[in-house]
Amino acid sequence: MSEINNALEEIKRGADEVLVEAELEALVASGKRLKVKAGFDPTAPDLHLGHTVLINKMRQFQMLGHEVVFLIGDFTGMIGDPTGKSATRPPLTREQIADNARTYKEQIFKILDPEKTTVAFNSEWCEQLGAAGMLKLASHQTVARMLERDDFKKRYAANQSIAIHEFMYPLVQGYDSVALECDIELGGTDQRFNLLMGRELQKDYGQKPQVVITMPLLEGLDGVQKMSKSLGNYIGITDAPGEMFQKMVSIPDSLMWRYFELLSFRPLNEIDALKTSVEQGANPRDIKIELAREIVARFHGEEAAANAHKGAGNIVKDGEIPEDCPEVEVALEGVEQLPIGRILNQSNLATNSAQAKDMLKNGRVKVDWQVIEPSLMLGKGEYVIQAGKKKIAKVMIV
Amino acid sequence: MSEINNALEEIKRGADEVLVEAELEALVASGKRLKVKAGFDPTAPDLHLGHTVLINKMRQFQMLGHEVVFLIGDFTGMIGDPTGKSATRPPLTREQIADNARTYKEQIFKILDPEKTTVAFNSEWCEQLGAAGMLKLASHQTVARMLERDDFKKRYAANQSIAIHEFMYPLVQGYDSVALECDIELGGTDQRFNLLMGRELQKDYGQKPQVVITMPLLEGLDGVQKMSKSLGNYIGITDAPGEMFQKMVSIPDSLMWRYFELLSFRPLNEIDALKTSVEQGANPRDIKIELAREIVARFHGEEAAANAHKGAGNIVKDGEIPEDCPEVEVALEGVEQLPIGRILNQSNLATNSAQAKDMLKNGRVKVDWQVIEPSLMLGKGEYVIQAGKKKIAKVMIV
Repeated sequence: MSEINNALEEIKRGADEVLVEAELEALVASGKRLKVKAGFDPTAPDLHLGHTVLINKMRQFQMLGHEVVFLIGDFTGMIGDPTGKSATRPPLTREQIADNARTYKEQIFKILDPEKTTVAFNSEWCEQLGAAGMLKLASHQTVARMLERDDFKKRYAANQSIAIHEFMYPLVQGYDSVALECDIELGGTDQRFNLLMGRELQKDYGQKPQVVITMPLLEGLDGVQKMSKSLGNYIGITDAPGEMFQKMVSIPDSLMWRYFELLSFRPLNEIDALKTSVEQGANPRDIKIELAREIVARFHGEEAAANAHKGAGNIVKDGEIPEDCPEVEVALEGVEQLPIGRILNQSNLATNSAQAKDMLKNGRVKVDWQVIEPSLMLGKGEYVIQAGKKKIAKVMIV
Repeated sequence: MSEINNALEEIKRGADEVLVEAELEALVASGKRLKVKAGFDPTAPDLHLGHTVLINKMRQFQMLGHEVVFLIGDFTGMIGDPTGKSATRPPLTREQIADNARTYKEQIFKILDPEKTTVAFNSEWCEQLGAAGMLKLASHQTVARMLERDDFKKRYAANQSIAIHEFMYPLVQGYDSVALECDIELGGTDQRFNLLMGRELQKDYGQKPQVVITMPLLEGLDGVQKMSKSLGNYIGITDAPGEMFQKMVSIPDSLMWRYFELLSFRPLNEIDALKTSVEQGANPRDIKIELAREIVARFHGEEAAANAHKGAGNIVKDGEIPEDCPEVEVALEGVEQLPIGRILNQSNLATNSAQAKDMLKNGRVKVDWQVIEPSLMLGKGEYVIQAGKKKIAKVMIV
């Protein structure tokens, strides 16, 4: 029993709500291999740590031996926003969806075990419904029940228009659970209504209703608002190791244990031990560094994690030219090539020859993202040159 | 211009509402051959005169040279009531729909010209929508707009459940107008909302919106409630000539001109002349007889109309055995056959031999729906025997 209890404790870790807890306990106690679904938008994925809260929960189930379905909602993705009002939801082509699925896999398989993950697309069963099947699906729910959903209720009360197909989307999501015969569905707290739709539909279709587990929306680096790209308070999972490290170490102490709960793979008892150590006088910064290393290692490997503190503060990610990158011309003035030290100097990437020499000696200069030898000579052409952590320029040698 | 004005006057005759009248005038004035749609349930048709109000209006358009589409809503018919709550709306099979379409044709072609009538089935274009197309269709309308429909509004206010697919049905009907590119749609006043949906959808699809003409629901024989089978205040279009005649002559005077307006094919000026004659002292009953003859002729031919007054009051329709038809056994008692007179007598279809003989002589006895010779002998077997207007029995000769 203690094994089951431990499993339950890990499953419930960080969860906002479990519906219904007794059903979850019975499922876990049954020893059955459970089917656990989480649904994702098929739009171009560019995940940050906030998104990984859900994926981490999927990983937990995977570690406990269960089947995890990473469901890509391509059926509605290929429809987009049929009202055409939302510029951010254009209809996607099958090719775009396949591309996005590939990108998803690259990112999620840093967390999930590819061998134990089923990547599914709901167009498979939704298209088969046909026009008549879609009408029948619509008959499974009432207008009044849909208007109970928080955002619908608010919009209806505020006389903001709700298009009828919006009522269909929760049903489509619920039908995914029917088609997959899910035991458990995971989602953000904002998905609660739609997840419950799955329960209701499964009952209608004579299935045992899925257990619903909602995960909280992760706070961003400011510790106040939810993590989001648009607020800039995020750590992207493709962020450079140094950047990731520095951001993680900079979070307020108040956020530290929350991040441990939702982002660390350490078992709860280890986290408790860390808490005790801080209570006994350990420096919270050291604890954040431990978390930062775990996260960097997850997305960039152990070596990068060991060296990430060196790169902390880098604003330049490999392969990415900042928008405000200066463009500089350096003239060959009759010769075929110029030494890299002189180029650094002339393009203001070093303040003087001594600094240039120093950076070159320490391997802190990259040309086109590659660390170079101090003896490098460059001829006519265009190069992206980085010097140290913060300096970058497009250099045209003419 | 006077021709156009006459056409407009006939088109508007009896109509409850024309939306938009100026558009109708422009359409008629254009001289184009217009496409005029009316939709019908694919459930077993058994039309009464109330239903013919719409069909008569279709006929008017036909007489004016326009194309009439008799649209059978088989797409939703094959779905039935997906909630299973309505026992009266089971899903129909393709075979049942084909059968019902045949029955419809038998009935409507007593009014419409088969050569100028397109019988269409909306499954043709609705099924092609597919699941995604159905969602896109749903996006064309808002929840708030649907809740403006009278019955939805009332049910929502009364906390009676509205299933979401019910919101789709007006859109499906509207989409029919898009698929057919209708110029005009006809329907009962209870269809007003759905007919307007066609206008809105056509605009969305870049088409000129159809003109909507609503026809009133015909009052039944009582002159108060709308004509309906369940209220028993109806004249079925397969009613026997005599029954039809008698019912029509029995309507209250107050209803007479209403019936003329909506059921007679006479031009308005002839009806005006009849009104004048009544004002000048003509017996309303004579006018009703004229209408009765017109209606009987429409469904049973001129000869039946000329003789219908003789059969007035017949409760027995040819080919139809009343539910309460008595079953009688008559014993042969050793002989091979019995004379019909004796059978009538023994089975209480005649009160005595003299009456039996009299009825036989006057051709008022039918065996298995055929008038028979007074000399007929019947052997062992089962027969349906009618004597006069009101007596019928299943007679087993044993």
